[in-house]
Amino acid sequence: MRIALDAMGGDYAPYVNIEGAIESVNDSTDISVILVGDEGILSKELADKKYPSSRLTIKHASQSVSMDESTAYAIRKKRDSSIRRGIELVKTGEADAFVSAGHSGVVMATALLVIGTSDVVDRPAIATIMPTIKSPFVLIDAGANIHCKPNNLLQFALMGSTYCEIMLGRKNPKVALVSTGEEDTKGNELIKDTFKLLKESEINFIGNIDGKDIFTGEIDVIVCDGFTGNVILKTSEGLADALIKMLKREVANLTTGRLGYLLIKPALRNFKKKTDYDEYGGAPLLGIKGTCIISHGRSTSKAIRNAIRVASDFARKKVYNIISSAIEKDILHHERINISNEKK
Amino acid sequence: MRIALDAMGGDYAPYVNIEGAIESVNDSTDISVILVGDEGILSKELADKKYPSSRLTIKHASQSVSMDESTAYAIRKKRDSSIRRGIELVKTGEADAFVSAGHSGVVMATALLVIGTSDVVDRPAIATIMPTIKSPFVLIDAGANIHCKPNNLLQFALMGSTYCEIMLGRKNPKVALVSTGEEDTKGNELIKDTFKLLKESEINFIGNIDGKDIFTGEIDVIVCDGFTGNVILKTSEGLADALIKMLKREVANLTTGRLGYLLIKPALRNFKKKTDYDEYGGAPLLGIKGTCIISHGRSTSKAIRNAIRVASDFARKKVYNIISSAIEKDILHHERINISNEKK
Repeated sequence: MRIALDAMGGDYAPYVNIEGAIESVNDSTDISVILVGDEGILSKELADKKYPSSRLTIKHASQSVSMDESTAYAIRKKRDSSIRRGIELVKTGEADAFVSAGHSGVVMATALLVIGTSDVVDRPAIATIMPTIKSPFVLIDAGANIHCKPNNLLQFALMGSTYCEIMLGRKNPKVALVSTGEEDTKGNELIKDTFKLLKESEINFIGNIDGKDIFTGEIDVIVCDGFTGNVILKTSEGLADALIKMLKREVANLTTGRLGYLLIKPALRNFKKKTDYDEYGGAPLLGIKGTCIISHGRSTSKAIRNAIRVASDFARKKVYNIISSAIEKDILHHERINISNEKK
Repeated sequence: MRIALDAMGGDYAPYVNIEGAIESVNDSTDISVILVGDEGILSKELADKKYPSSRLTIKHASQSVSMDESTAYAIRKKRDSSIRRGIELVKTGEADAFVSAGHSGVVMATALLVIGTSDVVDRPAIATIMPTIKSPFVLIDAGANIHCKPNNLLQFALMGSTYCEIMLGRKNPKVALVSTGEEDTKGNELIKDTFKLLKESEINFIGNIDGKDIFTGEIDVIVCDGFTGNVILKTSEGLADALIKMLKREVANLTTGRLGYLLIKPALRNFKKKTDYDEYGGAPLLGIKGTCIISHGRSTSKAIRNAIRVASDFARKKVYNIISSAIEKDILHHERINISNEKK
């Protein structure tokens, strides 16, 4: 698999990106990485590193997009950005997938513009896998679409279900919609209208949930607009960090704490591994006619390596084709419903 | 202080409500509680309990509001509900404050209808105090208003600031707005427009934050619409629960775990206390011309007791008067800005 990596995207770029790329090509012989970004900077950084040079190459891009740029500005003015050039490599077939830890809004808009969505999808969405007490779940949309319509959320639910079946091996995954309570009278107009669409669909829709039900492990796919999804994702990261720090401090305050801490240290390590977002690598932009993986802005080299692994896996399985077919099937089902409603 | 308690509201009503009320009147001689709800049920439950009968009385209400009712329906059809009758006691001056663990949307709408807001506030909002690694912060709106305008959020920020000064003793509290990133180019139109209003105001506005910054303890007041606030509050509760369970299981899996667990048990207990929402009692509905405290739907008797304590404290300090004055002052400041802008 040939992965185009946005070498200039993310808070610690290009260093961790280069590290992650080198680790990836050293780890697996079937992965090659194209570092997309400023050739001068990248070749200098690579100069004293050891790696198979046939599988780690550079594609020059003179511009990079910073996190505080508006999407509209970046799309108009940064036509030679590492994001644009990387996505073009997927469009032309020179790469099998694109990975970026950069500005997710710009990645989404550029992918939409350059590659486009499957015919049956209006808006692509970010699908993230998150851990729970039991088994992980898929959160969609984790931040690509700030404004959504009911039909977008229906499509996210369909894409999320199919993604969950493929990646987590769940049959007929249970789908829930994020609201301010379980009752269908709660939430905003978007939630109420989406509730009706999901009820009519072939999706295994179990109803609305509120935030407290997210981490019980009872639900396979959790659907929301990108604003809410971003809030859920980031709040969870921040809180998990804070809780571990609080607990460590409480333990440190005990006279028996040091011994106790040593005895439970392996548990803390396992726990951290299970709740560490770096482990999950990147999240795919579902709905695009190609493979596009968005990694966390704070990605470490481990996160980049995992994102490259996810991208490779995703491209090999041609997940975007499977997802388009699933949605097409459901749209036919919807048309049948509409036709039979009209006949009544 | 005379507290009207919605005896029929909450998942474990009326039992925990009655328990919490009895504990409150037994604990402090300056608190009296009026249990509002079905007299038959309540007097039967009270029959074999010990308490000072002059400070624990019943106000009959024949109806109660369930969690799955729509707010519009409850307002129209439940004119003899425990929520309505309780709030009326505040309006007539028979009670100093109202406490409910029931349907927060109905409490908000009824308070708005029966008591009304201060002249300078358009919409009341729920202000919740939440723990962090360092010191707690105020989250506003935690769920009262699903739809908000920029001016509502500006008023929430003002009310939250004043509330934070009074209750947490912070001078010139740092206020942030929840978005999908720190940059002012991120977020939806509501966030972008509110950002400008907050920048112009006298509030100590430090800018936008995303979810990961919520629990760092660096911010005193976190402002958002009620949908987002509800998601933050409930997601945090659910995740904190899940993380503690995950950690306990990891510890149990170790051979050294049992001893280690015993040694760190006091730390876990302290930790649970700090992250236990029951400890924080209820959250005030700010902006109402009176004291109205909303407690968690899953309130235990401890949570009810703490909510009664918060209500009593809040009514004694006449927090709603202080908040109205603070907002009035800022509105004058705004008018000055507008006048000087017009002159330019």
